[in-house]
Amino acid sequence: MENELRRDYFTDRQVIIAVGRGRRPTDFKHEAAMDSGDVKGCFFCPGNESSTPPEIMRVEEGGKWVVRVFPNKFPAVKPERGESTPEMMPAYGYHEIVVETPDHTKTVADLSVEEIGRVLKIYTARVDAMYKDPIVKYALVFKNHGKAAGASLAHTHTQIVSLPIIPKAVAEEEAAAAKYRMEKGSCPLCDAWKREASGPRGIWEDGNAAVFAPYASRNPFEAWVLPKRHVRVLGELRPDEIASLAQGLKLVLGKLKDGLSDTPYNMHFHLAPPGGDLHMHLEVMPKLSTWAGFELGSGIIINTMPPEKAAEFYRQT
Amino acid sequence: MENELRRDYFTDRQVIIAVGRGRRPTDFKHEAAMDSGDVKGCFFCPGNESSTPPEIMRVEEGGKWVVRVFPNKFPAVKPERGESTPEMMPAYGYHEIVVETPDHTKTVADLSVEEIGRVLKIYTARVDAMYKDPIVKYALVFKNHGKAAGASLAHTHTQIVSLPIIPKAVAEEEAAAAKYRMEKGSCPLCDAWKREASGPRGIWEDGNAAVFAPYASRNPFEAWVLPKRHVRVLGELRPDEIASLAQGLKLVLGKLKDGLSDTPYNMHFHLAPPGGDLHMHLEVMPKLSTWAGFELGSGIIINTMPPEKAAEFYRQT
Repeated sequence: MENELRRDYFTDRQVIIAVGRGRRPTDFKHEAAMDSGDVKGCFFCPGNESSTPPEIMRVEEGGKWVVRVFPNKFPAVKPERGESTPEMMPAYGYHEIVVETPDHTKTVADLSVEEIGRVLKIYTARVDAMYKDPIVKYALVFKNHGKAAGASLAHTHTQIVSLPIIPKAVAEEEAAAAKYRMEKGSCPLCDAWKREASGPRGIWEDGNAAVFAPYASRNPFEAWVLPKRHVRVLGELRPDEIASLAQGLKLVLGKLKDGLSDTPYNMHFHLAPPGGDLHMHLEVMPKLSTWAGFELGSGIIINTMPPEKAAEFYRQT
Repeated sequence: MENELRRDYFTDRQVIIAVGRGRRPTDFKHEAAMDSGDVKGCFFCPGNESSTPPEIMRVEEGGKWVVRVFPNKFPAVKPERGESTPEMMPAYGYHEIVVETPDHTKTVADLSVEEIGRVLKIYTARVDAMYKDPIVKYALVFKNHGKAAGASLAHTHTQIVSLPIIPKAVAEEEAAAAKYRMEKGSCPLCDAWKREASGPRGIWEDGNAAVFAPYASRNPFEAWVLPKRHVRVLGELRPDEIASLAQGLKLVLGKLKDGLSDTPYNMHFHLAPPGGDLHMHLEVMPKLSTWAGFELGSGIIINTMPPEKAAEFYRQT
């Protein structure tokens, strides 16, 4: 396969699929395996609840919490007003942590489909709560798993950050989807799953949800999980759709854990901004490469694995 | 200092300067220091010239090479035509390596100002040579230093990649500069250095060149180096401007080496595309943080160090 310069379904994202570069030699040792940290001193483990800011919500079973939500102690944004200038505004908003399991050694891949569905509902509730503040213009839900993917603590957790603006990447994706609809009369992500779900980049589908490796994948093993129905935000999902998304997500994260040595990954939800029409989807991005000078300077991302091969990996039983 | 959401001088880049997040605890061990590799087996060291593809050019002193240019053995692009589709074209172009010193233990920071100037002229010659191919629409010059910054080999080297399109990041920056000029009647980078060079974000200047930490820095210790004159591409630089840029660059890279334990960094040249009017500049980006789920999902970058503090570091003698 020659090197291909591919473009995304509807955004202006460009990637080079360069299989040969995956074979280049290196002077450097491989990243050490994820250090799971000192369980006893873990801020997110049961018994250490007082080391986090005051709890916002919890789910209990048998008198013990199983999911816990609290503000980030070292937030990127704060609900504090202040002076603005033409080139600066206070980074106003809420930065919360969702700890999805009390078990320091588990990840979301180890939860049951029902438990993952419950967690998706908690994300929904927190996003909806943040939008109650009229200054909030967008709430972003994401997970960093492992040090290489930017996590600072090992105990699995998801972050929700709300912002006083619609952030650049969200505004661009919403605008690109609107442009596609104007030109083709259809939603780019409805079109994408219909094209991909049963093809060479398809990973899994049921009646409600689809999982596939996107045509212009930026990373080895990149996978997208989405509802088939044109759903824009978490709050619009039906219970059966939540169950299907949970099943698709468990499949992807399970493969990364069991088939790829618990590889570090970033996962982020693409949710429509208020009033927008973007088809919601989750992007799971294993962190197996470093975006460097080429990516910084060009905006084009080099990926050494074709998504067709990634889909094969996920489809293996 | 509260958390600030800052925007760039002229692009739509957004960063959050969040000092408090720099104090968050971590479960993970620090990155091991850069492994300088097995000198004996280094593909880029003298004696191993046959392990690279055939040489394109060299500079010799006393019968030995001091700078060497050859094609990348594992290229991201190749000068091979092929079929295109509406969403894919062959990644056509040239991918070259410039090894700036035969000494495995040296970096560009260790070269003299004259030697760095010579290297800048070699980049110029190779970029100009690539543009002789009419399929080439842009040539990108960049360096990855250290494993964390995406280098696969330790021996210092710069890469030049030409592409069959003007890449997304370059097209966006050129368009944003044109918009700024339409609105303000001036060049955004001429305005930026005039504002910054002698202020709290200023690092160094002489009659020809300026170095400063940009207002919306994405990384701790980010620094920009540029000619004061409105020069668009390397080939337009006068010899005295090359000497000044070399001096500014040596200052920045020397500080990163001696004052920051030879920290990994990416460096990339922002050169105007053919026919464009972008004011050329170099961006040096130390790799001291990981862009993770937040950055991927929002396009906004969190930086835990204000550029005002970075500039203080560089100004210390």
